[in-house]
Amino acid sequence: MSSIVTLRDLLVEEIKDLYSAEKQLVKALPKVAEAATDEQLRQTILEHLEETKQHVSRLEKVFAELDESPKAKTCEAMKGLISEGEKAIGQKGPDALRDAGLIGAAQRVEHYEIAAYGTARAFAEELDLPAVVELLQATLDEEGEADKTLSRLAGAVNRAACLAGVPD
Amino acid sequence: MSSIVTLRDLLVEEIKDLYSAEKQLVKALPKVAEAATDEQLRQTILEHLEETKQHVSRLEKVFAELDESPKAKTCEAMKGLISEGEKAIGQKGPDALRDAGLIGAAQRVEHYEIAAYGTARAFAEELDLPAVVELLQATLDEEGEADKTLSRLAGAVNRAACLAGVPD
Repeated sequence: MSSIVTLRDLLVEEIKDLYSAEKQLVKALPKVAEAATDEQLRQTILEHLEETKQHVSRLEKVFAELDESPKAKTCEAMKGLISEGEKAIGQKGPDALRDAGLIGAAQRVEHYEIAAYGTARAFAEELDLPAVVELLQATLDEEGEADKTLSRLAGAVNRAACLAGVPD
Repeated sequence: MSSIVTLRDLLVEEIKDLYSAEKQLVKALPKVAEAATDEQLRQTILEHLEETKQHVSRLEKVFAELDESPKAKTCEAMKGLISEGEKAIGQKGPDALRDAGLIGAAQRVEHYEIAAYGTARAFAEELDLPAVVELLQATLDEEGEADKTLSRLAGAVNRAACLAGVPD
């Protein structure tokens, strides 16, 4: 990190971190969709996988705007988040409980991205890079929507999970 | 995780994860405060350290409400988030740039906690545990406020970081 001397350098670091995070997600989300049993949850995750692929290509456009070649820098936080997601995938017991755990893990991921894109957008605004701001904002909006959709689904899934644990 | 058969078990798992996350933060925040050069940022972090100690004790009250003994289960995501924070702390170059990076790392942490407490609160609501909901909501409110305060501070800090990189 010793070569970081300007806010622009720091923005590039943030984009490399996000590029790693989104690429890790593209690999992880199919396994999450496979583990989900609620049909609406599975569909939501599959749709978000397609969006995530778009997020990767938007970040490549951001690299181009910044005259940088696309390069990922391992995002340690996303590694930890995905490792928690894997625990939720491996959860034994009632399906609805596994779904409830998957939603919890997915919302942590969305919030990580909301914070990270928010920081990158603030840097781009300060640096007066409107094209970069626009690209980051487009993804930020989709992450926010995904989080809201997951919150809505959590209602029914948690209710089912609550009933699943009640002995007959 | 094989002993999780009810939503209540899953709530206990979430509380153990949060207990680990908050305890990791109590250890990490003094180093963040020490690395911060902006006086308002340093004060905000020190105040949030005191709040974080309260969050630990609130979680102990949640364990008591659930008739469980307080036990942390290593939160891998927070490990990753703190490892990213350590990179921001070690950032060479202008002070304002380091501060900008610290705010970015701290907001990721806040968002992780907002998501995790939100999930736990939703489980507690579904399980009709109003005392637990109240304890979790109190912390959730403080995490949200801390995130907003950091966003406000980011304005001035990013401006200084932007100017710091401009040659005289």
